[in-house]
Amino acid sequence: MNEEQRIVMLSRVFSAQAGEEAGIEVGIGDDAAVLAGSHARSRLVWTIDEQIEEVHFRREYLSWHDLGWRSFMAAASDLAAMGAEPWCALCALAVPLDVTDTALEEIALGQSEAAAAIQAPVVGGNLSRSSPKSGLSVTTTFLGRCEVAIERRGARPGDGLWMAGHLGLAAAGLKTLERHVDHRAPLAAAVAAWRTPRALIAEGRAMAAVASAAVDVSDGLARDASHLGTAGGVCIALHEASLLADDALVAAASALGESALDLALHGGDDYALVVASTVPVPGFRCIGEVREGSGLILRNVDGDESALEAKGYDHFARSP
Amino acid sequence: MNEEQRIVMLSRVFSAQAGEEAGIEVGIGDDAAVLAGSHARSRLVWTIDEQIEEVHFRREYLSWHDLGWRSFMAAASDLAAMGAEPWCALCALAVPLDVTDTALEEIALGQSEAAAAIQAPVVGGNLSRSSPKSGLSVTTTFLGRCEVAIERRGARPGDGLWMAGHLGLAAAGLKTLERHVDHRAPLAAAVAAWRTPRALIAEGRAMAAVASAAVDVSDGLARDASHLGTAGGVCIALHEASLLADDALVAAASALGESALDLALHGGDDYALVVASTVPVPGFRCIGEVREGSGLILRNVDGDESALEAKGYDHFARSP
Repeated sequence: MNEEQRIVMLSRVFSAQAGEEAGIEVGIGDDAAVLAGSHARSRLVWTIDEQIEEVHFRREYLSWHDLGWRSFMAAASDLAAMGAEPWCALCALAVPLDVTDTALEEIALGQSEAAAAIQAPVVGGNLSRSSPKSGLSVTTTFLGRCEVAIERRGARPGDGLWMAGHLGLAAAGLKTLERHVDHRAPLAAAVAAWRTPRALIAEGRAMAAVASAAVDVSDGLARDASHLGTAGGVCIALHEASLLADDALVAAASALGESALDLALHGGDDYALVVASTVPVPGFRCIGEVREGSGLILRNVDGDESALEAKGYDHFARSP
Repeated sequence: MNEEQRIVMLSRVFSAQAGEEAGIEVGIGDDAAVLAGSHARSRLVWTIDEQIEEVHFRREYLSWHDLGWRSFMAAASDLAAMGAEPWCALCALAVPLDVTDTALEEIALGQSEAAAAIQAPVVGGNLSRSSPKSGLSVTTTFLGRCEVAIERRGARPGDGLWMAGHLGLAAAGLKTLERHVDHRAPLAAAVAAWRTPRALIAEGRAMAAVASAAVDVSDGLARDASHLGTAGGVCIALHEASLLADDALVAAASALGESALDLALHGGDDYALVVASTVPVPGFRCIGEVREGSGLILRNVDGDESALEAKGYDHFARSP
């Protein structure tokens, strides 16, 4: 099974209990779980994310401080995707014996700085050695709060598709690091996008007032936007021209000899927000629309349309 | 630094924010964080625990189903230690490519069965590949609820020290597995104690009505009881006779040629609860008392007393 098939399987195993428990408003399958609060307009939003050495990062690609910051923001992005305000976090660190006290402190300082940036203090966690041959991992769980959580389902035909942040820039940064090429402009912005992303909390709060559905882009736009389509039973159409209207991306792609469109469609790790809304969303720009039907469509710069594969990062894909 | 020194360091890094945030009643350093609820008698208790292959378990020691059960119960034990009622959980799985779909489903079934046993459904999580050379890890975060959370601090001179569950039995089980000796009685109970522990939720709820301080025993009694002493600024005296009043432990220790007292004092993974209380606690038995002063004392069966080292499992100890 690939990653999505495995998640469906896990969801089936766990659904027996989850559906019965009072207070569980959104369970497995969205960006975060949503729990009923004590009064109708207060909800808890709860998410967990793990960043694993040699899977999500390599030590040579970023500083310990960046690792702390990046893991914290990556996890917080799921709160942004639900329109929630961060409350606080727990961090579990699995640390090989070759990671020094100083390195550990640097990771914590990066987490702490990210916590200050989104006003979500670290209130606990777990510290464990990891196995001799395995690497470091950082797991972060967040609680957030909101009045209404914006789920993946809910996009309606006629909605516009709106995006905040960058798409493809972090993937360009990762390619820069993988190829050991010079980090100067225009690639500096790309490397920074990969190393030190920001969870778009304010943008998430803004979209929560109007959006019908939302997702954050961690595994690539095509894959994550397709979640909106599948969950809502609708077709998602993306506009190539709007995806290319990002000077930082186009310059980075050009310097790398890569297709800016491919990076925007399939590159992950940007933690952009993509939402469906009938009205413009402050701080977001239009990148497509929601239609009746199913699947993903790309409208190119000439106005021609073609089906688009929902490919993106899959942890268990047979052929990567 | 050893594990405790590292936790102190992390606590210092994170304390800048945590103290300022409204609604954080207990932060880093207890069994779980405690967050203010919407009214005075409702609190959220929040914990995270990670079980890592080759550190916390080896595949040959337990079934996939047991791994799911065990990781879930180990995490839930921190709720029991605060006197909280479990609400729900998120599970993050980091899975090497050699773990099959069937194995993954078995882990989830073990988690799901444990979830049913303590009425805390899994409402979300994270699924990731782990690095090629590293092993499997299961991270579980729980939310619980309570009126009053029982912290590690609060033990007062004159309190009795009360215990629910077994001490040392799981360690005897782990030794049985490590030595590949026959699992038949009296070692079957020990192996079961290690493989399929139970979070003592009902006992935790019972003690919450009377206890002045509480901790669960995951790293050995001497070490975990010393947390009660340090947090409360008191001395903890343990009674050898009461620690040996456990037929299952004594039989298992004898079959292994091990000291039952050493297993009870320093063996981990039992998830027993140890609490300080002026009055007897239903379902608990007395294993010592709280005195003025500091440190740990053992009163042997002859009534002689000696200082006891707070040694136990330390992930980063220089000499294990």
